This record gives sequence, structure tokens and C-alpha cells, in this order.
Amino acid sequence: MIGIKSIASYVPAEGLDNYAQGAKFAKDEEFIIGKIGSAFLPRKAAEQETSDLCVEAANALFANNPQLSRESIDAVIVVTQNGDEEGLPHTAAIVQDKLGLPTHVAAFDISLGCSGYVYGIYAMKGFMEAAGLKNGLLITADPYSKIVDPEDRNTTMLFGDAATATWLGEDAPWQLGKAKFGTDGSGAAHLKVTDGVFFMNGRQVFNFALLKVPAHLHELLGEAGLTSADVDAFCIHQGSAAIVDAVARRFEEEPQKFIKDMVETGNTVSSSIPLLLEKHILDSSWKRVALSGFGVGLSWGSALIYRP
Amino acid sequence: MIGIKSIASYVPAEGLDNYAQGAKFAKDEEFIIGKIGSAFLPRKAAEQETSDLCVEAANALFANNPQLSRESIDAVIVVTQNGDEEGLPHTAAIVQDKLGLPTHVAAFDISLGCSGYVYGIYAMKGFMEAAGLKNGLLITADPYSKIVDPEDRNTTMLFGDAATATWLGEDAPWQLGKAKFGTDGSGAAHLKVTDGVFFMNGRQVFNFALLKVPAHLHELLGEAGLTSADVDAFCIHQGSAAIVDAVARRFEEEPQKFIKDMVETGNTVSSSIPLLLEKHILDSSWKRVALSGFGVGLSWGSALIYRP
Repeated sequence: MIGIKSIASYVPAEGLDNYAQGAKFAKDEEFIIGKIGSAFLPRKAAEQETSDLCVEAANALFANNPQLSRESIDAVIVVTQNGDEEGLPHTAAIVQDKLGLPTHVAAFDISLGCSGYVYGIYAMKGFMEAAGLKNGLLITADPYSKIVDPEDRNTTMLFGDAATATWLGEDAPWQLGKAKFGTDGSGAAHLKVTDGVFFMNGRQVFNFALLKVPAHLHELLGEAGLTSADVDAFCIHQGSAAIVDAVARRFEEEPQKFIKDMVETGNTVSSSIPLLLEKHILDSSWKRVALSGFGVGLSWGSALIYRP
Repeated sequence: MIGIKSIASYVPAEGLDNYAQGAKFAKDEEFIIGKIGSAFLPRKAAEQETSDLCVEAANALFANNPQLSRESIDAVIVVTQNGDEEGLPHTAAIVQDKLGLPTHVAAFDISLGCSGYVYGIYAMKGFMEAAGLKNGLLITADPYSKIVDPEDRNTTMLFGDAATATWLGEDAPWQLGKAKFGTDGSGAAHLKVTDGVFFMNGRQVFNFALLKVPAHLHELLGEAGLTSADVDAFCIHQGSAAIVDAVARRFEEEPQKFIKDMVETGNTVSSSIPLLLEKHILDSSWKRVALSGFGVGLSWGSALIYRP
């Protein structure tokens, strides 16, 4: 059974002081850290392309796993909605070349935002099992600095640039359990790009997430015959401190199980969940963890991962 | 085992007389039909978005399969590099809403060009099996009329707009067999969009396809323990009449098994193979068919489908 073997990441060292950004918009430090959740927002350099962020994360993964050779990689999926080119070609092909991967690699992009990692792990596992592949790289990289207007107070204090690379393969310490997904395109206009600039109706997105995510996680647990007491930790998309706190409060028994870690990263879109897994979960002694991603589409996905 | 249950399509009735286009570029009818392969190039209406083409194809699929309810759909993948919006949100979410599908649908886009259908059937089957889903719609829609310059003689005589919808589910008459994939991002510049306009180095792409596709199909057959005598038909991407003919000639035993049908459609990118399957394969008495898609990336994929 294909599962998660290792995760590495790349977070640019350069970035924005979010307190300074807050001051510009008359937001105090309590708002920045308590509601937004991030004191610092990493920013890629102007000359770095999305594929370069992917390459940094994948090279960190190879460095951490010397037993994983480039020649053994046979699948690469990049989850992004802000790839290198204007849609064509796909970023995963550029990554194949920049990483020096063999040409027998199957490579494609998946277009999803903040729900993308949860979909991505099932898409990669499933594709590999259906096609008989052995070692997959699932890469997330969605640098919103490409599309966020620095004068838009609804978005410029939220998003950070980052990339992650997940190695999926056999004999993995973490396996994928039950998953549930959802899509409501009637809310597509709440998060969209027009003429190269990102727009978000923050109130609508917050309300959607608070209405949808706790119920979805409760349904997932119920269908798996579990309760929140059976879960060691919840790693949900770090949209903002306010949304993570609000979702956690809907789990009255165990709100402390919701991991919140975005002070130095911001909302990194599809990279937020794998960043949490890399830092807090993969090397922990925990046995079962719930994930939930939600955002642009509108789209959401929740899943259980576990140590077999 | 998830397999291919049904395929439907949408080809716009309006379009371009390709002989007239040829005359503009001093190309005679022999060139247009013999080398290009298409007398007519379907064109979507200006007001039709990519999602509208998807909806037309999916509605044809529902009309052909009254036993398939919208409520029973739990996965939608759109293969496109020319979606509705500027990358965000994904077209599959818009299709979910326009089709009136339930919100428990898992929906995302896959970014691939002419190789996209071969990848897409394995991605959909695998995702459904990994996530426990039952009825998936794999939709292809990549209207190059959005990006082709009508003054570019290298591209404007080639591409036609179309969309297809494939129902994947249990108890399917056609199952997915062995598959092989490949990617060479060092050739990314041979097919790309810059400032909204598509560029193709036709000579490089032809050479790539002729070098890669026959060898890849031979390898696939060899690894499956088969020869071309064991295959009833070859459905390869209809890039042009010249490339289909040239690949077929590399199969000296059975060139007549290569289906060529693009006179009224042109090169429809990821829709070309499912259009062949719909028209020539699904209701045939044939038992085993080889597929091969190749194009932007560079990317290629070959697979065997069979009646169990």
C-alpha cells in the first residue's frame, strides 16, 4: 500500500514584517497575531519561479532521504494554481527537467488551492497504484505573492510563499485512511483571479469554512466509527488564526488537539498542511491524525492518516 | 475494478473551412487533407466558456445513460490547460455548479495537453479506488481557439475545439491494463503560451513524436508480453494526418490498425483519443486497444485497454 514516507519543505528566508503591514492598515499587533496569525510572511525572490520553489523543496527531500535516488522517481504531481507559465506547459514538466529526473516520469499538475494537499495525496497514491508506479513526489507550491495586491487589506496580510515535497511509496510509516471531499462551484466568485489580481471575499470564505469544516470532520469520524477522542491531532489548513481557532472551538472535547503554526509562514495555500505534518506529525509518536483543507472552488477535503 | 463505462462528446457545429484557410497560406487541398488531415475545424462560440463545452459533453453522457443520475456522481476531473478563469478557481468546480452535481463531489483539474486523456483515465481510476468513490466523470476540454493566432500558419490549420466526458465506474465493459508514461521538460519551449498566444515548433514536435511514440508503444506491448498482432486497434492522438501515418508506418505488420479520424474535428488536444474511443471502439467487438497521447510538456503516455 502506497503511503507517506517523508516530507520536506522550502520556506523563503526573505519576507514581509506583518506588524509593519498591519500598521499601514491601522491593525494592531493583537489583530495581526491573534486574528491573522502571522508575524512574518515569506516571499520568494522576484527571479524565483514556481518551479524553483518546487525544486528547493524536492532537493531538501532528497537530502533528507539519501536512499531515494532521482532515477527511482516515476511520478511527479505539482499542486498549484500559480504555475510558471500561462497554463501551458504544466509546471511538473519543468520541474522534471530542473530536478534532473529521468524521462520515464509521469508528470502533471493538479489545479486546486487550499484543499489541494488532501486531494493530492489520494490522487498520487491512486495514480501510482493504478499505473504500477513505485516512488512519487507530490509537490505543493502556490506563491500567492504573484497575484496578491499589496494594497488589498483583505489579502496582503494573510498569504506566505512556500513549497513542500512529499515522498509517497511502499512500506510507508503513515498510511491514508478514510477520506471525504466536497465542491461547491456556486461559491467560485468568493476567491478568484481577474486580470492577474487575486480577490477574496474574506467574510464569505470564513463563514463557508466555519459552516463546512467542523461538520465535515465530524462526518468523516462518524463514518470511520471514531470520535475526536480517537484522533491524536488535527492538522487543518492554516487559513488564519481566527479560522483555526473557530473550527477548534467546535470540537468542545479536544480543541487543544488542533495544531496552529503559522506565525512565521502565513497562509501558504496547499503547503499549509504538509508543513504541519513535516514539523509536528511525521516523527511524532502519534498514531492517528485528521486533516482538512478548504478554500478556492469552493473546495474542501478531509482525511485520516494513521500508523499501520 | 473501476473501468470505462461510457463516453460522450460535444463538437461545435460551427467552425472553419480548412481548405479556405489553406488557400490563404498557399496550401493546396492535398496538403490540407493529406498532411494536416482536417477539412473542417470546429470552433466554440465566443460566449462559450471551457466549462460550457464540458457541460455539453457531460449532458450528452447523461442523456445516453439514463441509469446514471447526477446525484450518484462523486468525482469530476477536467483535463485542460485553457480553463475558464485565470487558473483560479479550477474549471471542475464551475462544472460541478453548472451541471447541478451534488456538493459531495471531489472536483479538480489536471493540467496536461495532448497526453492528458491517457493520464486522466489512470488518475481518475486511481483516485476513485484510493478514496472509495463510485462514479467519476473525466472531462476533456481544451479549446485552443482561445490561444491560436489565426495568422500563425504553424497552428491555425491544425486545432479544433471539442469536449468529451467519460464515465468511469464499476462493472465496466472496458478495463485499464498496463500503462507507461514519460516527461521531458527540456522540450517545454516547443509548445507554450506567451502573452496569451500559443507557439509550436512543429518540426521539433513531429520529430519528438516520431522518435518517441512507436518505441513507447513497442515497449508497452513487450512489457505486457504482447505484440501488435494481439492488439485490435491503435488509437493515438490525432496530432495531424502526417504524424498518425508516420507512426503507423513504424508498425510494418499492422499499419492499418491505426485509426485515423480527424477530417471533421482537427487536433482536439486531450479530446482526440476519447473521440476515437467513442466512435470506433466502445461499441465494437474488439477486445484489446492500445492508446498513446503525446504533446505539450513534453509529455507522453501509452496504455492498453481491454474487455475483461
